[in-house]
Amino acid sequence: MEIQVGKQSLAFAEAPYIISSASIVGKKEGEGPLGNRFDVVGEDDKFGQNTWEEAESTLQKEAFTLAVGKAGLKTEDIRYLFSGDLLGQNIATSFGLMDYQVPLFGLYGACSTCGEALSLGAMCVAAGYADYVVAMTSSHFASAEKQFRFPLEYANQRPKSATWTVTGSGAYVLGKKRSKARITGITTGKIVDYGIKDSMNMGAAMAPAASDVICRHLSDFGRNVTDYDKIITGDLGKVGQEILWDLTRAGGYDISSIHTDCGIEIYDADKQGTGAGGSGCGCAAVTLSAHFMRQIEEGKWKRILFVPTGALLSTVSFNEGMTVPGIAHAVVIEHAG
Amino acid sequence: MEIQVGKQSLAFAEAPYIISSASIVGKKEGEGPLGNRFDVVGEDDKFGQNTWEEAESTLQKEAFTLAVGKAGLKTEDIRYLFSGDLLGQNIATSFGLMDYQVPLFGLYGACSTCGEALSLGAMCVAAGYADYVVAMTSSHFASAEKQFRFPLEYANQRPKSATWTVTGSGAYVLGKKRSKARITGITTGKIVDYGIKDSMNMGAAMAPAASDVICRHLSDFGRNVTDYDKIITGDLGKVGQEILWDLTRAGGYDISSIHTDCGIEIYDADKQGTGAGGSGCGCAAVTLSAHFMRQIEEGKWKRILFVPTGALLSTVSFNEGMTVPGIAHAVVIEHAG
Repeated sequence: MEIQVGKQSLAFAEAPYIISSASIVGKKEGEGPLGNRFDVVGEDDKFGQNTWEEAESTLQKEAFTLAVGKAGLKTEDIRYLFSGDLLGQNIATSFGLMDYQVPLFGLYGACSTCGEALSLGAMCVAAGYADYVVAMTSSHFASAEKQFRFPLEYANQRPKSATWTVTGSGAYVLGKKRSKARITGITTGKIVDYGIKDSMNMGAAMAPAASDVICRHLSDFGRNVTDYDKIITGDLGKVGQEILWDLTRAGGYDISSIHTDCGIEIYDADKQGTGAGGSGCGCAAVTLSAHFMRQIEEGKWKRILFVPTGALLSTVSFNEGMTVPGIAHAVVIEHAG
Repeated sequence: MEIQVGKQSLAFAEAPYIISSASIVGKKEGEGPLGNRFDVVGEDDKFGQNTWEEAESTLQKEAFTLAVGKAGLKTEDIRYLFSGDLLGQNIATSFGLMDYQVPLFGLYGACSTCGEALSLGAMCVAAGYADYVVAMTSSHFASAEKQFRFPLEYANQRPKSATWTVTGSGAYVLGKKRSKARITGITTGKIVDYGIKDSMNMGAAMAPAASDVICRHLSDFGRNVTDYDKIITGDLGKVGQEILWDLTRAGGYDISSIHTDCGIEIYDADKQGTGAGGSGCGCAAVTLSAHFMRQIEEGKWKRILFVPTGALLSTVSFNEGMTVPGIAHAVVIEHAG
């Protein structure tokens, strides 16, 4: 089998295994529908730190330690770290992971970073460059609001299309050691810009990129929607989901019967007041680990397409009147018998 | 030969070639000692745009187009882009490269990003994941000052240890097609924190990371300093260079006779008032392309170690009293006969 598949995809001849994963979340995520499935739920979103940024760094530390421990490994067994976050200059990652002394590839793909990290980690293991790597990412509601919107103290109102940044970090140990799940292929996304300028409606900004990479994936692999048990986007929320269904239909694929979104799953939006759903790098990372990986590992699902979605904006670009382009990276995860 | 070498390095069995590279810089860089070697020197640092950020995006566009053109390729021949910049949420990269519709891995390694991009690009080509990739990065004096320090209009004084952010972008086409230079190995850096808190002395913050990765590289490959014609760091400047020499000596290697630094080479610091030297993602990227690649391609040098260096800070982390940790990534570039 060829490694390079179609225009944008890779199929791994020796597919790397997801040996373990771990999730840590904040209080609100712990009160949501998946609350009892996360490995750790914090009682205080500062996680014992003085600042929101240090709190987010602590999330990365904890998720790394948990995932490596579950895999029965030690920190020094991990050859590379692939990680990133939403904050300017990736500070949650830098200050979270520096104590571990593991060679680091710092990534930025906005909320698509979990897909980017899993893709590069899988490429690395499949090529024999490492026996074990960790792919991870984080976000924190308070550090993200401070970075992108308004200080929490300002107590501004939020439109219904706005999403709620997940406080959480998810980490994945990839390697050649057999487990119940493996990454069999990837489709790497391009930047897609539909000209959306509303930073309070990121689902609409990201849906075109998600549609583009999903349609491209199915075309590259010559597969149909029915070849997947689920297609799972990262954080489109309810507004973005409707747009995604319309766009993929226009692209020739009706995914509505098997599509779900981590941002929709993680909160009970009506009860929890989270608007269109959860968002942030951590949203896809913790929801895959705590919720979807189980169905794969138990064999209930044979194959899923995991598609974290990112909105490429900063306060500078937004204030200068630029659009909010999107990007999404697709990862095929299959049950390993 | 094993691919994994020592604790942190890879040696490529089929080393990917650097098929072409390109550089574009601003007015000040054009007036420096390497002025006549860059592919394009802008007359106006806004490069025809309305904002500094758009100007930096234009640099990336131009560098990409030039490098791909020099390689005799078309945009659609490029399977992956590995790129990043210094701005929050990588906006120079996102808005610079979105028109090209090439699958993108967004990176953040501060000023070490050129080393990170070349490393991941080489790993990707060597594994057969792509026939051609582009590794690139950019920085811009004015967008970086606005991001990290003070508005230019404030006209603050700068200490002598401060560096001057290079306005420029460098792009590299990597592939299996034969050329005069190839990437034969890499050593991926860890975050190293010596507790420096002075954002105006980034050379001191980055030198420990550079020393760590250089010593680790030589140890992993079982080589001596004399096995290299040059060891070239990214943007340590004069202050950082002295610290690097001391630290590598303490590590058992005297690199002073063959070490140079892109930040020292790119400006005439006394005449141009650039303090300790040049800095920024673009500094290492354009200096390698315009200056050092020639010596390799002409065979004057057989083997160099290229070590872009990054300071991991943001205004948020700095204002919260955090340190400025460093990271550096080493890339072995050899003449191909």
